Amino acid sequence: MQLRRLGILGVGLLGGSIGLAVRSRLKDCVVVGYGHQGDTLRAARQMGALDEAYEQPQQAVRDADLVVLCTPVGVLSPLLQQIAADVAGGAVVTDVGSTKRTVVQAGGRLLKPGVSFVGSHPMAGGEKRGVQFARADLFEGGICITTPTPQTDPAALARVEELWKLLGMRITRLSPASHDRLLADVSHLPHAVAAALVGMQHEEALGLCGKGFLDLTRIASGDPGLWRDILLDNRDNVRQSLRRMADQLQRLEALLDGQNAESLRAWLDAAAARRQGLVDSKDQGPPAA
Amino acid sequence: MQLRRLGILGVGLLGGSIGLAVRSRLKDCVVVGYGHQGDTLRAARQMGALDEAYEQPQQAVRDADLVVLCTPVGVLSPLLQQIAADVAGGAVVTDVGSTKRTVVQAGGRLLKPGVSFVGSHPMAGGEKRGVQFARADLFEGGICITTPTPQTDPAALARVEELWKLLGMRITRLSPASHDRLLADVSHLPHAVAAALVGMQHEEALGLCGKGFLDLTRIASGDPGLWRDILLDNRDNVRQSLRRMADQLQRLEALLDGQNAESLRAWLDAAAARRQGLVDSKDQGPPAA
Repeated sequence: MQLRRLGILGVGLLGGSIGLAVRSRLKDCVVVGYGHQGDTLRAARQMGALDEAYEQPQQAVRDADLVVLCTPVGVLSPLLQQIAADVAGGAVVTDVGSTKRTVVQAGGRLLKPGVSFVGSHPMAGGEKRGVQFARADLFEGGICITTPTPQTDPAALARVEELWKLLGMRITRLSPASHDRLLADVSHLPHAVAAALVGMQHEEALGLCGKGFLDLTRIASGDPGLWRDILLDNRDNVRQSLRRMADQLQRLEALLDGQNAESLRAWLDAAAARRQGLVDSKDQGPPAA
Repeated sequence: MQLRRLGILGVGLLGGSIGLAVRSRLKDCVVVGYGHQGDTLRAARQMGALDEAYEQPQQAVRDADLVVLCTPVGVLSPLLQQIAADVAGGAVVTDVGSTKRTVVQAGGRLLKPGVSFVGSHPMAGGEKRGVQFARADLFEGGICITTPTPQTDPAALARVEELWKLLGMRITRLSPASHDRLLADVSHLPHAVAAALVGMQHEEALGLCGKGFLDLTRIASGDPGLWRDILLDNRDNVRQSLRRMADQLQRLEALLDGQNAESLRAWLDAAAARRQGLVDSKDQGPPAA
């Protein structure tokens, strides 16, 4: 991959891991980072994630041929606005956010002609946050969803997808709208459900919770500020997912009488078989684009 | 602990683990097992979980001073009926089922005068099933809920609790009704929710699921037949839990508009903090009785 200068805006778990991976794999690329905390930038430089570090985003995008926005979803649009005048002509900008319609629209609206925006969602990370958990292999084997639109420059899309492939990811392309609809079901709703499961417990019940409950609710420990932004940005889809979930729970309630033992068994069988299918497919690796 | 002869009815993960643990810790106790499959009984003997094995439950309870029922919840009452005439006077019978009202009532109704029933729910195990996963330390550090009633003989309760303490468990006492109400919230509902989360997914969304989704839905891989019996036996409580869960999800839906960003954040903060509290309390070990 030809990359002269990479700008990473936001040096946390994801931004730091991109820096580590690119510096170890593209020796000629200068990796430049922006963060608003001097401590974080120093830590990122010390661990080898950045060649240069700046406390102003404009400084980190100048002359970069690829810019990756790695801040929380809620501040992507203001950040695009801040850097718009300073991104070099011909550069490509992408992001790592968990929702895609808003940022793709903002990129198209705010960036100069000649600068391309391509939405990305590398599915990696977890509940851990901060550059101290960054690893060069964080993205290895994961799926990255890219969200081109009919307006997307194919060369810009190729540059972004090359980055993720360099980091070991497989690419799945979706429209921004499809991305947000599918992720509401498979990620945003599950987060909300885990939080609701914790929230509904009485104190005395929590004293009895076992490992199963802790596994089930692990994602509820994710950063509340990040998740607030994600749920609000994708609220139309999350509402639809919540309603389908409520329908499932109502269906279950209807099956909870002695007359429906076989239907209840079939409902549980279907869920167990489906999850097993998922586990088996993961063992074979995620589907390629 | 004084135990001359222990009868284990049902030699799967739990029954086999009880056998292994007791045989290694009480050298003078004869451990007798019942199973309806010869293969399982042979495996249990080979791994050292049983001294004697029988294919009729009556044979496994004769002369035992303690009998532990380790079959699925749905067959506990019929099993009590089968063994009632053969349990020795003065013996104590307990079980390991995930619901307690029905079996405690059946024990009191079906067993002879002079034979005591005490409900137990040792919280150990997981999705794995079968004697091949049995381990002498399966119960170490876990909580066992015992469910005495005003009619329970204190000496019988002590004999049962001594068994669980011998196996490394901490005891929490609850009435059968409290047990079933609390476990509906912290175990039965979460299982149902995990199954519903898998069940509501469209195929194309499942292709995008990550490790978080698999963790969240792990308990949906539990045995559907076992879970059908648990959910049906505890259906009044599970219905209440389902309704409280539905209320939480409705509350969340109401928070999903831009005006409520702070309330949504507070809702997510509370869930994350609560779960962290749980993780911290588990690190310090479960509460003692």
